[in-house]
Amino acid sequence: MLKVSIIGATGYAGAELLSILYRHPQVEITHITSESHTGKKFSEIYPHLNGIYNQTLESLNDIEKIGGDSDFIFIALPHGHAMDVGKKLESLPVRIIDLGADYRFSDTSIYESWYNVPHTHKNAPRVYGLAEIYREEIRNAKIIGNAGCFTTASILALAPLVRHHLIDVNTIIIDAKSGVSGAGRSPKLGNHFPELYDNFKAYNVAHHRHTPEIEQALEDIGGEKIILNFTPHLVPMSRGILATCYANIKENCTAGTIDAAFQKMYGNEKFIRVLGRDAYPETKFVRGSNYCDIAWHIDERTGRVIVLSAIDNLVKGAAGQAVQNFNIAAGLEEDIALDFVPIYP
Amino acid sequence: MLKVSIIGATGYAGAELLSILYRHPQVEITHITSESHTGKKFSEIYPHLNGIYNQTLESLNDIEKIGGDSDFIFIALPHGHAMDVGKKLESLPVRIIDLGADYRFSDTSIYESWYNVPHTHKNAPRVYGLAEIYREEIRNAKIIGNAGCFTTASILALAPLVRHHLIDVNTIIIDAKSGVSGAGRSPKLGNHFPELYDNFKAYNVAHHRHTPEIEQALEDIGGEKIILNFTPHLVPMSRGILATCYANIKENCTAGTIDAAFQKMYGNEKFIRVLGRDAYPETKFVRGSNYCDIAWHIDERTGRVIVLSAIDNLVKGAAGQAVQNFNIAAGLEEDIALDFVPIYP
Amino acid sequence: MLKVSIIGATGYAGAELLSILYRHPQVEITHITSESHTGKKFSEIYPHLNGIYNQTLESLNDIEKIGGDSDFIFIALPHGHAMDVGKKLESLPVRIIDLGADYRFSDTSIYESWYNVPHTHKNAPRVYGLAEIYREEIRNAKIIGNAGCFTTASILALAPLVRHHLIDVNTIIIDAKSGVSGAGRSPKLGNHFPELYDNFKAYNVAHHRHTPEIEQALEDIGGEKIILNFTPHLVPMSRGILATCYANIKENCTAGTIDAAFQKMYGNEKFIRVLGRDAYPETKFVRGSNYCDIAWHIDERTGRVIVLSAIDNLVKGAAGQAVQNFNIAAGLEEDIALDFVPIYP
Amino acid sequence: MLKVSIIGATGYAGAELLSILYRHPQVEITHITSESHTGKKFSEIYPHLNGIYNQTLESLNDIEKIGGDSDFIFIALPHGHAMDVGKKLESLPVRIIDLGADYRFSDTSIYESWYNVPHTHKNAPRVYGLAEIYREEIRNAKIIGNAGCFTTASILALAPLVRHHLIDVNTIIIDAKSGVSGAGRSPKLGNHFPELYDNFKAYNVAHHRHTPEIEQALEDIGGEKIILNFTPHLVPMSRGILATCYANIKENCTAGTIDAAFQKMYGNEKFIRVLGRDAYPETKFVRGSNYCDIAWHIDERTGRVIVLSAIDNLVKGAAGQAVQNFNIAAGLEEDIALDFVPIYP
Repeated sequence: MLKVSIIGATGYAGAELLSILYRHPQVEITHITSESHTGKKFSEIYPHLNGIYNQTLESLNDIEKIGGDSDFIFIALPHGHAMDVGKKLESLPVRIIDLGADYRFSDTSIYESWYNVPHTHKNAPRVYGLAEIYREEIRNAKIIGNAGCFTTASILALAPLVRHHLIDVNTIIIDAKSGVSGAGRSPKLGNHFPELYDNFKAYNVAHHRHTPEIEQALEDIGGEKIILNFTPHLVPMSRGILATCYANIKENCTAGTIDAAFQKMYGNEKFIRVLGRDAYPETKFVRGSNYCDIAWHIDERTGRVIVLSAIDNLVKGAAGQAVQNFNIAAGLEEDIALDFVPIYP
Repeated sequence: MLKVSIIGATGYAGAELLSILYRHPQVEITHITSESHTGKKFSEIYPHLNGIYNQTLESLNDIEKIGGDSDFIFIALPHGHAMDVGKKLESLPVRIIDLGADYRFSDTSIYESWYNVPHTHKNAPRVYGLAEIYREEIRNAKIIGNAGCFTTASILALAPLVRHHLIDVNTIIIDAKSGVSGAGRSPKLGNHFPELYDNFKAYNVAHHRHTPEIEQALEDIGGEKIILNFTPHLVPMSRGILATCYANIKENCTAGTIDAAFQKMYGNEKFIRVLGRDAYPETKFVRGSNYCDIAWHIDERTGRVIVLSAIDNLVKGAAGQAVQNFNIAAGLEEDIALDFVPIYP
Repeated sequence: MLKVSIIGATGYAGAELLSILYRHPQVEITHITSESHTGKKFSEIYPHLNGIYNQTLESLNDIEKIGGDSDFIFIALPHGHAMDVGKKLESLPVRIIDLGADYRFSDTSIYESWYNVPHTHKNAPRVYGLAEIYREEIRNAKIIGNAGCFTTASILALAPLVRHHLIDVNTIIIDAKSGVSGAGRSPKLGNHFPELYDNFKAYNVAHHRHTPEIEQALEDIGGEKIILNFTPHLVPMSRGILATCYANIKENCTAGTIDAAFQKMYGNEKFIRVLGRDAYPETKFVRGSNYCDIAWHIDERTGRVIVLSAIDNLVKGAAGQAVQNFNIAAGLEEDIALDFVPIYP
Repeated sequence: MLKVSIIGATGYAGAELLSILYRHPQVEITHITSESHTGKKFSEIYPHLNGIYNQTLESLNDIEKIGGDSDFIFIALPHGHAMDVGKKLESLPVRIIDLGADYRFSDTSIYESWYNVPHTHKNAPRVYGLAEIYREEIRNAKIIGNAGCFTTASILALAPLVRHHLIDVNTIIIDAKSGVSGAGRSPKLGNHFPELYDNFKAYNVAHHRHTPEIEQALEDIGGEKIILNFTPHLVPMSRGILATCYANIKENCTAGTIDAAFQKMYGNEKFIRVLGRDAYPETKFVRGSNYCDIAWHIDERTGRVIVLSAIDNLVKGAAGQAVQNFNIAAGLEEDIALDFVPIYP
């Protein structure tokens, strides 16, 4: 049994993490923390876990004690807070999986310029937590910067094409759409039910913080500098992301080479379902599961490929991916506790 | 391993059943049938099961063969069709769990008058499949008439009060609300997305077929004749039922006796979460799970008790309940394959 | 042209009021106020009115000045605030339509016990603002306490039966369901999009403040003391209320006498559509309009009548009703600016 | 008074058209037709118009008679049917506004290759019905091919940039999202409520029929050959389209020249609200209105402009636009009967 703690357990990602880990046969949850709900039982904050999971929330004030009690710590705090925790636990054997952005960038100056905060743990030994791309690095990592939700859908959609140089990387446009749980659990006017219901909008056009994260991974995969467009939209639904990715194809890019690129990269991946050419992923087909469904379309008229990918933003885009990374880092089977079936309809 | 077949597997209840049974460690699925999709793979009909469950759909034409191959058969056909299947399998050792209405009534004349079809298997050895009430009868049943969705929420809400004679049974009014999946997967104008979205309505007022089913069970529990009002409504959501049940309280009915009645009846039930007085079940707290959440309110001004119950109509209201009944009938632990956590938000 | 001001214009009811009055040919809007948005243009707060209505929001600090400039003042403040305004304007000729609860009760002690605030304007000359019942009193009223949303749907559904003594008033149960805009525009967890979407729940069972308001009107109509059950629920949609009303019928209550009672009371009403027996109002059939659709069902088995009524909570349940009252009070045609068609689908 | 008939009145566009025309002070509706509902009252098919509009539906069999009785005919039939009607009315003075695709293309071979039907009225005297671009041509047109929903949002978003040659037209990508009413009123599995609710998907990637329509208009506006990507998606909501349009900017393209281009083209347009740079249109801000809201963002990093536009697909994308075209063609004020305010929230 591995001892696991969750720092910042009361956001949506934290709650999803608990729901998954609670059923993990090799995990014992030791501490869960929340600064705003310290002392309350978790099921008071999330009544759907009534009678299932009732542990009491602590403060993270004594993080060294928590770190000492734990083999692994998951951090689900707003960006800027995880690096404090990480620094304090530097010398302890505990390993860290951060669901936020603090440990996602190898070049912390990119983090600083997009997030507008100084990075205080620049030399942290960290890897990017997207298992299908960085599995080997994750195995022994001290700190794993779990990939973001939009970035997971986007990178997985484009990685095979970038790796095999089938597209012109200067033409990448990612038009992404997310359910509202991606915006977190703090009530604000923008997420107030009557404002969003029966409504659709874009936000953060040209400056969403997932942009450099996607660029970093694709540059790493393809070995070329990449600057791309990423546009998020808000869908009036709870969960799910669909990314629609456009790029001009190169001469070597055909139905056959695309298919081969995807099969080569994902043919053995448990959590990626390659639907193939001309198929249509739907967010509901992956809802409540750790799957990423991917399909592509070739537009002969314009010479572009359009790749569609769908994930559940709280599972493969956050908590499920974190557990997948955890399983790898802990030397366990990668799909333990992640074998749930999408809930439909 | 028990051999299990599903007759009529492509409705929502059938698909939910497959999703649950697929993960049941003691079940091997032998046949799945669909008359409209014979020969197709199940995941063509339900792409969310792509790569998970790909068995081919057969016809039920040779039902005796299917019955001979199976220890248990689940039937998820429209009412009026299960009794034909049941009759044909009468002499085989296979046991039957019918998710429809054909085997729910001990007095088949009630069935005939509410469903407008002659009952052709009147002497069938059957029990009513609501485990919390009829667990002992279910253990050795040949045919189990799985309780309906509205009826499950309604009966479980009122059973303790009726059993302990705490309410005037002539004053029972059940105002129930269901997500749209309860209406099945056949497209029709009434369930066309733009018609129902941002809309709310009642239907089948005073003559919904779940009425006599609720009456039958409550009469059986309380030992008194019961005629009640049941009014269903359609909520613009996919899953979930909330039943709001009203009744005049008797003199012996107090906060204490109500609480005692619920604790006595459900204190040890795995799938009933008694939230207690003045609490509020929400359908999302049980979504994707086999729980029934129950709470009650006492209105001193009017002398009425209001009991609220919530279930997922496709799980505790259909497929989950069927698997619960199966587990009991097969002599297994009652919660095997049913230990999933509600999906929230 | 009549000079009209709106106090508290930035709630949903205030915005709806402006949308209606803006197109009223005999109205000139003089002041609109908001304490939280003073100095901003209205279309900054509600961008759907961009280019349509851009007046600047003032404070209500100098309410006497506003009152002096206005023929009519609409108040859309939280309860407890309108009576201060009303008192300060007592000696001015301006007339008041309050969309809140402060002026709805003839017995202010009922208000005080349900709203937990002392009433500071007990002797105010006021009438209850439900035009179909109190039209004559509204014509010359100084202060009109506009009927609430749930109460409008409930009273209009039951008034004909109560007036003609066709039901046992001790058996009235109103099970009501509302879209989320009824809870106002202030973000809170309970109205946060992911929490409510695909979810259904009851709230304020046995103690919602619309209960005594319904009782007051029905007692007045029927001449008998009435204590009833009122249960509100939250539907995952923006707008609309459906009330399902139950009562035991008396001996003189038949299909004919019910129909006659409704025809007599509403036969000439412009905004009430009597759909008749066995029909089904839907909230979308009245969305964006000032209609109240009503139908009824008789359950011979239980001896109860079930009346269904549907309104748009922001129109007939708030702003539309307020303009209807205004038209009456101002001696205008009752439907001026209210002749819009429901928006469907 | 102008005599107006509607052929194919029972689709969503037809119903919206009736709702608008019903309130048009210079219109008298003479005939409304439906082949599937001949003989029924319109309000039986659309109960939200109960008591408002109850005319009886006829067959279009005697179209010459209908044409002879009418000054204008609106056609809201599936594509391929309007050209038969148009041909039969060729020699009558009646003028035609077709809401379908039959008369949208100046080169009918494009129509034939994308719609897979032979065009049988190739020499019809017709204009493209997008008032902001083709107003002068519309004034005296015999047949107006009303612009499609996606095309209206897309063309209006890009027209100023194309006309002033501010973008590289070879780089245009339009990623569009629509509410489900755009798919019509015929029930099918793809639009069945439980399948779409809480779900998001793309469809018809690289071959949606609105593609050549957008290309035709933009080529006409810019004077250059244009081949572009158009990708539609389905949003789980009833109404509304948001188009997200990408293009590489040319050297002369700056914040200033973009702004000037939009102001020059739309500064005096009643139904286009130019929100300007860095703003965010939302579909709910235009719901139920004839507005098209437009904003743009410049991504300095990638050298692209992103233009966002929002319309109500049934109003500015269909019926509202048709009435706008009608007003122009009839020599009336362009906004008569179209001055309704968006319904929010």
